Amino acid sequence: MHSLLIVAHGSRRDSSNDEVRALTECLRQRAGARFARVSCAFLELAEPSIPDGIDALVEAGTRRVTVLPYFLSAGRHVATDIPEAVERKRRQYPSVHIELASYVGASEGMIDLLLGHAALSRGPAS
Amino acid sequence: MHSLLIVAHGSRRDSSNDEVRALTECLRQRAGARFARVSCAFLELAEPSIPDGIDALVEAGTRRVTVLPYFLSAGRHVATDIPEAVERKRRQYPSVHIELASYVGASEGMIDLLLGHAALSRGPAS
Repeated sequence: MHSLLIVAHGSRRDSSNDEVRALTECLRQRAGARFARVSCAFLELAEPSIPDGIDALVEAGTRRVTVLPYFLSAGRHVATDIPEAVERKRRQYPSVHIELASYVGASEGMIDLLLGHAALSRGPAS
Repeated sequence: MHSLLIVAHGSRRDSSNDEVRALTECLRQRAGARFARVSCAFLELAEPSIPDGIDALVEAGTRRVTVLPYFLSAGRHVATDIPEAVERKRRQYPSVHIELASYVGASEGMIDLLLGHAALSRGPAS
């Protein structure tokens, strides 16, 4: 059973956290057979935390987790905090395969996404 | 002449700002005929500012600018700060058409980007 955990920063604004939860729900619906479970976790300021998010997936039977940082740049959180949290869980669950994907800002598809998004956002020619 | 301005938050870390500049360079190369110019600006902590970024495009002959917020969630910056900066420039340049795209996190393509990115990041099956 392979699961996907989206990790966002977390915000004091509930609406921003709810936006991540809604995105996760869309991912869950679109994932099809690719991921048995799709959930989200937050580095800080919102629940569940990264450890709690991984615990819940493992308790549900996941033996393989892809952790995907929903960040646009490689700051300290991406470079240090999230890898450390993942490494602690790898030690706790040696039989679970926990992969850390690169942050979404580093995705090869980002350039095309931006160009497509900019094109869609155009109003009528003026 | 239609130009694209990517607006990022800006960081105290030069490497994060340079990452946005590198992304902008990739966009420039990939844009082809879609945008005559592609540049970036920062809300705070880095240069150029949003006003300076728009000024430079207008001075270069742009008569239409699409401003694309490179943000993942709709916090205050996306909801208020960037629209206000754009509105001030619209008043300053009434003959220039300045469009504000929605932030990239709201892009319809984000779900597929994340699923594709998660799939690519998978190690060998275990």
